Amino acid sequence: MDFQNILNIIHKDCNRIENHGKIANYIPELAKVDPDKFGMFLLTNENESYEIGDSQEKFSIQSISKVISLTIAAELVGQDLWKRVEVEPSGTPFNSLTELERDKGIPRNPFINAGAIIIADVLLSVLDDPINDFLTFIRKLAGDDDIYYNEKVAESEKDYGYRNTALVNYMKALGNIENDIDDVLNFYYHQCAIEMTCEQLARTFSIFANAGKKISSKKQVISAKSVKRINAIMQTCGFYDEAGEFAYRVGLPGKSGVGGGIVAVHPTAYVVAVWSPKLNEKGNSNLGIHALEDLTNLSGLSVF
Amino acid sequence: MDFQNILNIIHKDCNRIENHGKIANYIPELAKVDPDKFGMFLLTNENESYEIGDSQEKFSIQSISKVISLTIAAELVGQDLWKRVEVEPSGTPFNSLTELERDKGIPRNPFINAGAIIIADVLLSVLDDPINDFLTFIRKLAGDDDIYYNEKVAESEKDYGYRNTALVNYMKALGNIENDIDDVLNFYYHQCAIEMTCEQLARTFSIFANAGKKISSKKQVISAKSVKRINAIMQTCGFYDEAGEFAYRVGLPGKSGVGGGIVAVHPTAYVVAVWSPKLNEKGNSNLGIHALEDLTNLSGLSVF
Amino acid sequence: MDFQNILNIIHKDCNRIENHGKIANYIPELAKVDPDKFGMFLLTNENESYEIGDSQEKFSIQSISKVISLTIAAELVGQDLWKRVEVEPSGTPFNSLTELERDKGIPRNPFINAGAIIIADVLLSVLDDPINDFLTFIRKLAGDDDIYYNEKVAESEKDYGYRNTALVNYMKALGNIENDIDDVLNFYYHQCAIEMTCEQLARTFSIFANAGKKISSKKQVISAKSVKRINAIMQTCGFYDEAGEFAYRVGLPGKSGVGGGIVAVHPTAYVVAVWSPKLNEKGNSNLGIHALEDLTNLSGLSVF
Amino acid sequence: MDFQNILNIIHKDCNRIENHGKIANYIPELAKVDPDKFGMFLLTNENESYEIGDSQEKFSIQSISKVISLTIAAELVGQDLWKRVEVEPSGTPFNSLTELERDKGIPRNPFINAGAIIIADVLLSVLDDPINDFLTFIRKLAGDDDIYYNEKVAESEKDYGYRNTALVNYMKALGNIENDIDDVLNFYYHQCAIEMTCEQLARTFSIFANAGKKISSKKQVISAKSVKRINAIMQTCGFYDEAGEFAYRVGLPGKSGVGGGIVAVHPTAYVVAVWSPKLNEKGNSNLGIHALEDLTNLSGLSVF
Repeated sequence: MDFQNILNIIHKDCNRIENHGKIANYIPELAKVDPDKFGMFLLTNENESYEIGDSQEKFSIQSISKVISLTIAAELVGQDLWKRVEVEPSGTPFNSLTELERDKGIPRNPFINAGAIIIADVLLSVLDDPINDFLTFIRKLAGDDDIYYNEKVAESEKDYGYRNTALVNYMKALGNIENDIDDVLNFYYHQCAIEMTCEQLARTFSIFANAGKKISSKKQVISAKSVKRINAIMQTCGFYDEAGEFAYRVGLPGKSGVGGGIVAVHPTAYVVAVWSPKLNEKGNSNLGIHALEDLTNLSGLSVF
Repeated sequence: MDFQNILNIIHKDCNRIENHGKIANYIPELAKVDPDKFGMFLLTNENESYEIGDSQEKFSIQSISKVISLTIAAELVGQDLWKRVEVEPSGTPFNSLTELERDKGIPRNPFINAGAIIIADVLLSVLDDPINDFLTFIRKLAGDDDIYYNEKVAESEKDYGYRNTALVNYMKALGNIENDIDDVLNFYYHQCAIEMTCEQLARTFSIFANAGKKISSKKQVISAKSVKRINAIMQTCGFYDEAGEFAYRVGLPGKSGVGGGIVAVHPTAYVVAVWSPKLNEKGNSNLGIHALEDLTNLSGLSVF
Repeated sequence: MDFQNILNIIHKDCNRIENHGKIANYIPELAKVDPDKFGMFLLTNENESYEIGDSQEKFSIQSISKVISLTIAAELVGQDLWKRVEVEPSGTPFNSLTELERDKGIPRNPFINAGAIIIADVLLSVLDDPINDFLTFIRKLAGDDDIYYNEKVAESEKDYGYRNTALVNYMKALGNIENDIDDVLNFYYHQCAIEMTCEQLARTFSIFANAGKKISSKKQVISAKSVKRINAIMQTCGFYDEAGEFAYRVGLPGKSGVGGGIVAVHPTAYVVAVWSPKLNEKGNSNLGIHALEDLTNLSGLSVF
Repeated sequence: MDFQNILNIIHKDCNRIENHGKIANYIPELAKVDPDKFGMFLLTNENESYEIGDSQEKFSIQSISKVISLTIAAELVGQDLWKRVEVEPSGTPFNSLTELERDKGIPRNPFINAGAIIIADVLLSVLDDPINDFLTFIRKLAGDDDIYYNEKVAESEKDYGYRNTALVNYMKALGNIENDIDDVLNFYYHQCAIEMTCEQLARTFSIFANAGKKISSKKQVISAKSVKRINAIMQTCGFYDEAGEFAYRVGLPGKSGVGGGIVAVHPTAYVVAVWSPKLNEKGNSNLGIHALEDLTNLSGLSVF
């Protein structure tokens, strides 16, 4: 069965399902989205693309950006990065302070909020112009300059970000934050506020499906070894405390965001982005996971 | 580079390393093993095999048996199994009571001790003659009848098993144990006390590298869908609270035991078993992980 | 206002209240009690006594016995006792395993189940005939030989005691249990199964209101210093995770049991026992606390 | 033995002891204090006073101020106060975020930092000019206008207060902070920065030894019922996770501060303040506790 057929079947299947998920409403800007949007874009390593639904509409990628910032940090800092953040699944909800306390300010992995804030702090110390440099890097990966921060979302995150302010202050107290707290949060909130389409997202992540080379240009962006490692972290930590369930049902490395997006990769075959705003209880796109489970079941192409 | 060359390089590399690990000594029987043993056996999906060192010597497979009991339970019970145990990484050491308390007696996954005890309880309720049936199933998978329980090890586990007795009583209090506590523990300790060689272990696990078919006979033993799922659980939960690190360094689904064994699979290419008794701080074979990291780096064959 | 008037007012007040508490039903023997029983017995340091309701009816004293076993252990073992159990409030429900794990098998105080099990283990190592010696000691304190173990209750506790079995095994694993586990639990369950009337209970505890002397005979049983310390532990740890609330509302050192009994002392004025089987959500007698709050408010006699 | 003799004996005893405690150094201002200072002031309910050492020298009262702010809040807000903070001992170190998370933003008691921040927030909502009103209230209690905030200490607390900033933001996220975060912290840090002598402290707390009346003027400041309750909270929660130990060794309601001060009351006999800057591992004055233990042992006057 070819991928377009599979996407069509998934689209029908997802339309049929009663979706009990709920859109993220912790910031007003996110609550404005149409909850019934659904889009999917798949790009094979042969550079063939397939799409359905709202695949060309932009949405807030939120935590998906954490993979990109980790990628930059891993390239620029190397092994020393892992003195400040671990690579273990967290076992508790994504904004937990308890684990941080137990682990003396070293976050469990770079994809929980605490860990991503550490990565933001790391990048602030090494990038010249962090907010611009970060956007430039994403545009290059996507091969598309039509990608922007939504400043209203960034502002809104800041206004309601008491939990993140708590996290960064707590890690500062424990000695794991180098830069000014407001600067760290401002950069972090900008990362979360990037907007992309399913296609842009898939193209940006194509390096993780293709041993570090962009699928379109075949240009090596990061090493194959880095890809192996970041894919591994996506697999074990990409879905908060639902990482095991996602591995079990879908069987692909991936990363979700509370904007309802998920991007997943098959390291020798394809990259896929899906968007459906209603989230399940663990904060991951309800239909998005369902669609990806269909995809690996119908194609037989998971990593397991 | 062919696999035999790779194994030879690994062997040399491992001989060179100063191994600061320590053998398991919580039961006297395990403490008797020669700490310097090292063996490795690799079987490709084309049924070609490669081996080095003490690959034909038997050792106590310990927790590696948890994958086999899960496989039987998943086949016999189906989806209902997941009402009694979850599939999420644990985030804390393997015998933690804290998580169990938080989660109301439902263990986080079938590979922590609490979860494996639940699986033993499940099997006790459905198998006619659990201890014999379990051994028979393993012998069939291995294609080899020369596999036995070490009764002294089983007895020794029982004598020092206060923590497991605590776990099973606690889960009984919370309503998640059906059978008599002594029967559950007796069956559980027998599973841990199976002895196998690296070759036997690799042959037993060949179904997980080959979509459910034994590599030698091509006979379908379990469905491809089951394989996908059990590999996913091995990937996210197979190494206690070092699962993220193992995914990051090695990039294969696998399972370790405190006897120093590790078995890992590449779901479209090969199965490999390695044995080296000295354990790192997390309770996994120190050289075993090192050897497997070499293997995926040198062969370029990981799932990520 | 004299004490008899106060008890009469309390009786009326307690009759008027709608009691939403629930009797303990975790063992069948306890569930058989008449939930509407209510008795109270007060003994002043001048050896004057006052009583209302079912003050002469026996009930299962349960955890109240923990104060007596602590008293014996403190006398026989001295300061070394505090190497095996602490004196801090627990902050979590009375049978929590989490704290025990955090504190390496040293229970937070001798009145949570784990701590009382340690005390039982300590007494097993120093008493010749623990079960008989314990009963003899209580009879002497009460000045009354008509006090017995209810063997059915002891048996019933054992049959449903999975949580306690978990606790003792876990502490054995952590090296804080010396004796055979079954012996420890058998002794512990006997202590819980003692039955007494409000009067017997008040007379037994009169030493804690009178600097170590029995109120009736003026005989010094334990030192004034021991009394000061055990009263302090009752004050901070006597009501599981409701110790602060009890101090706040009542303001007396005391100890409750799931049989619905509470005994409290004013260290220079009186001892009082109250019994009402329905328990609040924290496992303490609902009306019992209410009655004691009335008592200290009406008499003006609390320690604070 | 009269109190002056007792204080003299205590003074000698404390001079003899090798004090392994350490002064608080988390803010530079506190680290400047002479670690060998030692003062004590005792005031009986008959208005007789006794003192030794540096009893007339001012020091930073720090957390001792939490009792005063609770007193004002309890008077002005009444029972509703207890919807926002509990009265249970905390069981963990004084600045723990873990418990707060478990308890949904309701601090365990008003004397841990989180609870005192809630009290500051409560007072901000009801006082006209919180910082001035608070100081005025203390001066009236002390009967002495020579009491001031040390603005350098308040400023220093703010500069190093990452943990408190984390706490207040976290509670804001959980809906338990009404006012602007900076205002809450500014008021809170001022409270901690009050400086008093042992005599001033003892006179301020004399209402808690005398059923709500100032010992000097006999004027009723708060009700006897309020005194009973606040004394109870001091008893169960006044020494962070050493409250049980303090009750056990000393047997008086009291409150400590990291400036090395402790104030304790005997609710029918006396109030005492002691100051010695070196702290034990739990953050309470090492010699201060020793001195108070001597005091209740030598006088025979504890609440237990």
